[in-house]
Amino acid sequence: MLESPIITLTTDFGLKDPFAGLMKAVILGINQDAKIIDITHNIQRHNIFEASQVVSMSYGYSPPATIHVAVVDPEVGGLRRPLLVVTENHYFIGPDNGIFTPIFEECRSNFFKVINISSSHYFLPMSGSTFHGRDIFAPVAAWLSKGVESHKFGEEIYDYIKIPYPKASLSNNTITGEIVSIDNFGNAISNIKRNDLPKAASGEYKNNLRIIYNNEDLPLVNYYAENKSPGLSAIINSFGHIELFVCRDSAAGKFNIKIGDSVAVTLA
Amino acid sequence: MLESPIITLTTDFGLKDPFAGLMKAVILGINQDAKIIDITHNIQRHNIFEASQVVSMSYGYSPPATIHVAVVDPEVGGLRRPLLVVTENHYFIGPDNGIFTPIFEECRSNFFKVINISSSHYFLPMSGSTFHGRDIFAPVAAWLSKGVESHKFGEEIYDYIKIPYPKASLSNNTITGEIVSIDNFGNAISNIKRNDLPKAASGEYKNNLRIIYNNEDLPLVNYYAENKSPGLSAIINSFGHIELFVCRDSAAGKFNIKIGDSVAVTLA
Amino acid sequence: MLESPIITLTTDFGLKDPFAGLMKAVILGINQDAKIIDITHNIQRHNIFEASQVVSMSYGYSPPATIHVAVVDPEVGGLRRPLLVVTENHYFIGPDNGIFTPIFEECRSNFFKVINISSSHYFLPMSGSTFHGRDIFAPVAAWLSKGVESHKFGEEIYDYIKIPYPKASLSNNTITGEIVSIDNFGNAISNIKRNDLPKAASGEYKNNLRIIYNNEDLPLVNYYAENKSPGLSAIINSFGHIELFVCRDSAAGKFNIKIGDSVAVTLA
Repeated sequence: MLESPIITLTTDFGLKDPFAGLMKAVILGINQDAKIIDITHNIQRHNIFEASQVVSMSYGYSPPATIHVAVVDPEVGGLRRPLLVVTENHYFIGPDNGIFTPIFEECRSNFFKVINISSSHYFLPMSGSTFHGRDIFAPVAAWLSKGVESHKFGEEIYDYIKIPYPKASLSNNTITGEIVSIDNFGNAISNIKRNDLPKAASGEYKNNLRIIYNNEDLPLVNYYAENKSPGLSAIINSFGHIELFVCRDSAAGKFNIKIGDSVAVTLA
Repeated sequence: MLESPIITLTTDFGLKDPFAGLMKAVILGINQDAKIIDITHNIQRHNIFEASQVVSMSYGYSPPATIHVAVVDPEVGGLRRPLLVVTENHYFIGPDNGIFTPIFEECRSNFFKVINISSSHYFLPMSGSTFHGRDIFAPVAAWLSKGVESHKFGEEIYDYIKIPYPKASLSNNTITGEIVSIDNFGNAISNIKRNDLPKAASGEYKNNLRIIYNNEDLPLVNYYAENKSPGLSAIINSFGHIELFVCRDSAAGKFNIKIGDSVAVTLA
Repeated sequence: MLESPIITLTTDFGLKDPFAGLMKAVILGINQDAKIIDITHNIQRHNIFEASQVVSMSYGYSPPATIHVAVVDPEVGGLRRPLLVVTENHYFIGPDNGIFTPIFEECRSNFFKVINISSSHYFLPMSGSTFHGRDIFAPVAAWLSKGVESHKFGEEIYDYIKIPYPKASLSNNTITGEIVSIDNFGNAISNIKRNDLPKAASGEYKNNLRIIYNNEDLPLVNYYAENKSPGLSAIINSFGHIELFVCRDSAAGKFNIKIGDSVAVTLA
């Protein structure tokens, strides 16, 4: 473990209620050396898929041994299990509802295991049934950050839950994907990644590729301000995804782009 | 004091202006070892009652010696006094406007005292009259966290202000209360607590109690997803309050529940 | 440098996406002792002027050697340069688009220099073109906080960009300024400062000055609750600016005050 272990938080708790703050209070009460990073608390209410994407795009920027807590948990207090996922470089803690689906697929290695958290002596003593973020996930993250070994929290399981994930598909030189998120700037991010493209290492995308949205060809540029026209453009963003944008404006707002809309990339 | 003292912040400053950030800058400038937790900065503007509830439901989850700063302060700069409240396990710092009313009632003990903060050499040197969060409350919290004794900040007072607090009342086997807050999920929380119920220790609430809202009996369940119907249900939430909810939906939004609405619990 | 160096963040990233969290993850991955303060992430999208004001009003409340990172960056990935600004007491890191205009004017001294950040070995290895907050500004701030000397990041430049700044002007005993921001409470803040007023050291403003907005004289008070009427009043706020407010209400909302509206102060 790091001297100053890092715990990240991703939830749908919002920033009006004290819920995120209480998770931090519980963590610091157990491990005063923990460094806590808010990834976001504004996941859409109950949107497990959105949270899973945020965790997937975020965890790699934290140093090794970071503990990522993700809580979007409509089945809290029922039969769904609390999970601790151990990968080669990171830990993930949250409900067994598919929130770690991309982690299950990306982080497989000899180190990979999924533990059903059942050692209730690590929980808050007066646990209720509506707020496992505070009562289970936060204290387990804090104890893990203090060096408690992962196998102490429960037994390994193999039947953890995955949710369906829309994947880009290749057919006849065309990669078809869809818009999977809209960011704060109104940029519309697709699930087509640089690695899905035919010439991943090449810088010549602009000449070789056609980006198609709503039956129109979009220019593929290298940086936002390269195309200052008021129309829609495409870029490979800093997470490696094809993204639709309008320079200094909201692409989603201006062109009514929705999550689920189809995007295609063709070799010209 | 803890080696790494914790300071929590609860304000109505919002998250657009730099106000909360400036409190943190002032605190870290005085005590670089302080750990600061945002409880919330989204208290409704000037809503002292809402802030008092958030402080009351939150402070108990922090470790002993935590300093809780709460600033909802429409009378800032006038005659209202700045307070430091010392209880057995916690400190509270904020304006004398009733924001600590539940603390005054819950935390009485031999250690309890309320201090009128008057030692201005602990304030920022260029204090103004509109932002005591930055100029008085933050630096006092920081100096307290560094070990300055509480009596150094001013003299004890006894005429601190309390605000009226709606309490659940018992009559003819019926406990009558009201909705006191709506959370981010649209859950409607009442002021009827587990301890108000006749058989506090029993797990058999479901069979013995009727929860009544808007002339309808609501099922009392053990966890949200136990009743997946689209109707209203009740639960005892993780703060020990009777709460009305709709599984995976907003109870307040769907059934137009408002703060102040009446809720009753009857022995069946 | 401080033992626990402080890094502040001011961005237009919002609090839904993980962008601000990723900057923190990158910083803590390089310097686990950094203390990070969110000034705000809710700058209006692409509003460089708003960000520049927030940085200007905020930096002075942090201790010496604080590193202030400001990212409102519509030209990201193009030709605009990344800057490190060194002043006597603070560091500023962000794009060369005018975001530090007031810093350039306020912080001149023998220590003042502006560096074009070009030493790419301090950047994240896989930098993209859309998120320099994560890929350049965060790691440079972290390395600086670890003690890397400022000249190691690039060469000094002198042709850094400034944006036009509305200034209060004096003519015939009347100071004319304008509303430059509206805060969370609906208070409307002008660019007329205490130092612009004729008798800066005097406490007798109330008798000597007339504050004029929309052809009406406003009372100038010492604290918000001094005038409990439902009308508009003026105050010198805790940042030294003339501010228009309504006691316990939103001045901007009630009187439709907009950024750019004219405000005047006359000697009576």
